[in-house]
Amino acid sequence: MSEDHLGAAKGLRVGEIVDALGGDLRGDAQHQVLRIASIERAGAGEIAYLSHSSKRGWLNSTQASSVILPADLEAEAKRFKAAILTPDPYLYYARLAQWFAELLAEPEVAGVHASAVVDSGAHLAPGAVIGPCAVVECGAVIHDAAHIGAGCFVGRNAIIGQGTRLHPRVVVLAGCTLGERCIVHSGAVIGADGFGYARDEHGAGVKIPQTGGVRIGNDVEIGANTTIDRGALDDTRIGDGVKIDNLVQIAHNVQIGPHSALAGCVGVSGSARIGAYCFIGGGVGIAGHLEIADHVVIGGMSLVSRSVRLPGHYTGAFPLDTHQNWSENAATLRHLSQLRRRVRQLENKLDTQALPDLTKP
Amino acid sequence: MSEDHLGAAKGLRVGEIVDALGGDLRGDAQHQVLRIASIERAGAGEIAYLSHSSKRGWLNSTQASSVILPADLEAEAKRFKAAILTPDPYLYYARLAQWFAELLAEPEVAGVHASAVVDSGAHLAPGAVIGPCAVVECGAVIHDAAHIGAGCFVGRNAIIGQGTRLHPRVVVLAGCTLGERCIVHSGAVIGADGFGYARDEHGAGVKIPQTGGVRIGNDVEIGANTTIDRGALDDTRIGDGVKIDNLVQIAHNVQIGPHSALAGCVGVSGSARIGAYCFIGGGVGIAGHLEIADHVVIGGMSLVSRSVRLPGHYTGAFPLDTHQNWSENAATLRHLSQLRRRVRQLENKLDTQALPDLTKP
Amino acid sequence: MSEDHLGAAKGLRVGEIVDALGGDLRGDAQHQVLRIASIERAGAGEIAYLSHSSKRGWLNSTQASSVILPADLEAEAKRFKAAILTPDPYLYYARLAQWFAELLAEPEVAGVHASAVVDSGAHLAPGAVIGPCAVVECGAVIHDAAHIGAGCFVGRNAIIGQGTRLHPRVVVLAGCTLGERCIVHSGAVIGADGFGYARDEHGAGVKIPQTGGVRIGNDVEIGANTTIDRGALDDTRIGDGVKIDNLVQIAHNVQIGPHSALAGCVGVSGSARIGAYCFIGGGVGIAGHLEIADHVVIGGMSLVSRSVRLPGHYTGAFPLDTHQNWSENAATLRHLSQLRRRVRQLENKLDTQALPDLTKP
Repeated sequence: MSEDHLGAAKGLRVGEIVDALGGDLRGDAQHQVLRIASIERAGAGEIAYLSHSSKRGWLNSTQASSVILPADLEAEAKRFKAAILTPDPYLYYARLAQWFAELLAEPEVAGVHASAVVDSGAHLAPGAVIGPCAVVECGAVIHDAAHIGAGCFVGRNAIIGQGTRLHPRVVVLAGCTLGERCIVHSGAVIGADGFGYARDEHGAGVKIPQTGGVRIGNDVEIGANTTIDRGALDDTRIGDGVKIDNLVQIAHNVQIGPHSALAGCVGVSGSARIGAYCFIGGGVGIAGHLEIADHVVIGGMSLVSRSVRLPGHYTGAFPLDTHQNWSENAATLRHLSQLRRRVRQLENKLDTQALPDLTKP
Repeated sequence: MSEDHLGAAKGLRVGEIVDALGGDLRGDAQHQVLRIASIERAGAGEIAYLSHSSKRGWLNSTQASSVILPADLEAEAKRFKAAILTPDPYLYYARLAQWFAELLAEPEVAGVHASAVVDSGAHLAPGAVIGPCAVVECGAVIHDAAHIGAGCFVGRNAIIGQGTRLHPRVVVLAGCTLGERCIVHSGAVIGADGFGYARDEHGAGVKIPQTGGVRIGNDVEIGANTTIDRGALDDTRIGDGVKIDNLVQIAHNVQIGPHSALAGCVGVSGSARIGAYCFIGGGVGIAGHLEIADHVVIGGMSLVSRSVRLPGHYTGAFPLDTHQNWSENAATLRHLSQLRRRVRQLENKLDTQALPDLTKP
Repeated sequence: MSEDHLGAAKGLRVGEIVDALGGDLRGDAQHQVLRIASIERAGAGEIAYLSHSSKRGWLNSTQASSVILPADLEAEAKRFKAAILTPDPYLYYARLAQWFAELLAEPEVAGVHASAVVDSGAHLAPGAVIGPCAVVECGAVIHDAAHIGAGCFVGRNAIIGQGTRLHPRVVVLAGCTLGERCIVHSGAVIGADGFGYARDEHGAGVKIPQTGGVRIGNDVEIGANTTIDRGALDDTRIGDGVKIDNLVQIAHNVQIGPHSALAGCVGVSGSARIGAYCFIGGGVGIAGHLEIADHVVIGGMSLVSRSVRLPGHYTGAFPLDTHQNWSENAATLRHLSQLRRRVRQLENKLDTQALPDLTKP
């Protein structure tokens, strides 16, 4: 349960919330909120949010004592001790949750844990935190308020920007750079070698040393066990504000524009370039050396095998069906171009058989 | 080879196996079995199993001295020094293999390795094992006979149930709970932040702090490098007996019912609910906020994009073909709805052209 | 940037390059090359390569002072201070890059870091390197010039061959064997349990202890966060020269023939056998217990659901389209076998309606 995890509750008055985050207050400005809860499970002292007026049914059953409501639900506000009306309750919730998270955060003590192994040639800002069993190599730079979690590895000459947090067991290899306020989740590997081989005369792979780096902007979040490979000669580049979910593979020399988001299990092949403000659905595969324009949405599990030049929503995924139906349709699909030819033959037959005459006796 | 790995062999007599696990014994009850081996490679002193009578051909060539046979193969039993007849040889093998594994297990010494970093505010049962370079934070609870492998991280207030084993380099983040007798393989990350953002006025992501936890039942197995995210507000929940393979992504607020199994590379999106006794094939993607009923089987690489309300076997995957054929069929597929319209036009044409008259000259 | 990462530049003369690696030299044999750069970004003192004459446009704009050119571009050589003509510039580049990588490699000091935990029963060759916070268990064998990176885990009786490098935080579990000159990237897990369960009378999974190992040949490269499971009874086997990208899942008892390559996010199910010199595209899923012949190429994101007996290029992936078009086509696809029946009915109708008579009034 979140309570256990979050520790002793510290409250906020609804009035001070609205003073800081905006919105229209209805009800008691002195009402004390202990924490945020989902509208399904909220109880006394908890604030919930309703993302959209279409979900207003929940207002009948919720036990929340205060709520964040879409602006068009003003009439419902009076049911609660306090309500905040705002055009975008989800965004409001995000900001309020960040505030609570700060309130409840464990205080951190800057410095290097006794069990960490930090090379004497590494550069640590005074406010940096290095967790237990972390390893920081020579020439690495850890900026102020950066947090290197337990068991992380930061290689030679890597740079970790101000306020960036590496959760436990993240690996950042030599020469890679993370900007400010990034969050990297456990198990992520940044800067492993790209997958590059020439083939020799006998067909065996000859490794191409990967001597580029990885360059990650500010406010980037990288999911658990995600991998971002270093470039072959130039750098792999991730723009400001990019959000990458878990178990995503970013190959060498990929470029991702600012504020794009990649859901879980996406694979991006080498040298692909993804624009800004894109959303790549879960499990999507993106082939190498192609370009995706800004503001492109790719539906889950699609394969992007050629460049997408125009903004829009694209999909390519086999529709789910009962195995029996799928099996019949899939069998037919294997002869689809033949079926098209048969249709054309039928059309030709009907055209050439003087069909217009048919209606004239 | 298993011998090296398993250490000195210790035997079981076939008689004592049948006494403990059941089955009909044929042959010499005193016959000594040193270990289990595959029917292809078994030799003297080894017992093999034949899962189904359709594979009986292997009985001609195997060098195993004893076998576990389907009950309908009684006639074949006499070829071996000893044979055990049972309705489900595979299940019998599983149980016998567990017995051998216990016999051969390295004895473990309870206690904390000198190199581990265990906070003084953590609660360790006397029989818990904490391996080298493991980190256990304040408030964490490690129950009796739990094993925290080398280099694991167990965060604040996390709970590891009795007899649960974390293999090396597992991460369990703050406040997550694992039940009893679970097995978590190396590199798994339990309780990383869910992938949740609101969008601000400029389209940039605003992180939603993920304050729920992960709650895992008893007898759950979690594969290597699999990730299970913590809930946004409520918990992500994995039921008793669930088995999850490697490199699976379970997003925030997912619920999985008891005894379901997810094969490798599956991705489950946020707030999806999977029933009990389901089998999700490898590489399947499950979209967010949908429900899958109990006893559903999803074929490998399918995308589940809407709820599946009835038990059964469902599939959605493009059939493999030569690239040449695939290329022609895929091209036609892009005009499939057009093709259907052309067929309808043909049908209409034939219907309206007074075709019945055609046979009357 | 690569410079920072690579440290102080050390040069090679073009003449000595050609003496060692072959190729036809044009221009000044004394010309000094400091490093390799991409043709887009190369500057003075840098050598670039042009993989194919179709890309010759780059020769107009590059600032490289020397180049590796396809043999048919001899006429372009004179633009540069030095040029090397060779039938396969990409292979030449690979070999030259390896040479530079050796020149620039940090010297390594053999021995065990003070923070590593090496069991007294492990066997370490004098030239082995054991990094900080690494754990090596009893009976493990680390051969000469092998490098065990920071935070790696090498289990009981595992064998790491000569010159093999485990990057930080690799896990090699008990009894697994790696050959010589292998490279394993961070987060890879070799030898976790295969996903094997029998079902008991109530449908609950009964774990099958996985007592086989993993046997990896020479010159194998394994990507970041890739998982290779140990066999159930026999071993999982990876042939010489196999290259595996990031986030790939290799299930128990899989066999992969020499010199095959698997791109990122591939999943190979249990007991599948992949031949030699295959190329498996990114995100491909391979079902269990099937065989893929030598010299097979599988296109990205395909599902291989039955054996592929002949060399060739195979694909199965839904073509990407706008969501609107996809949606219409996918809806029709669900009735595809019906559409085929309708076409057959039309054909029958036209055949049986004495259509030849139509042209005879």
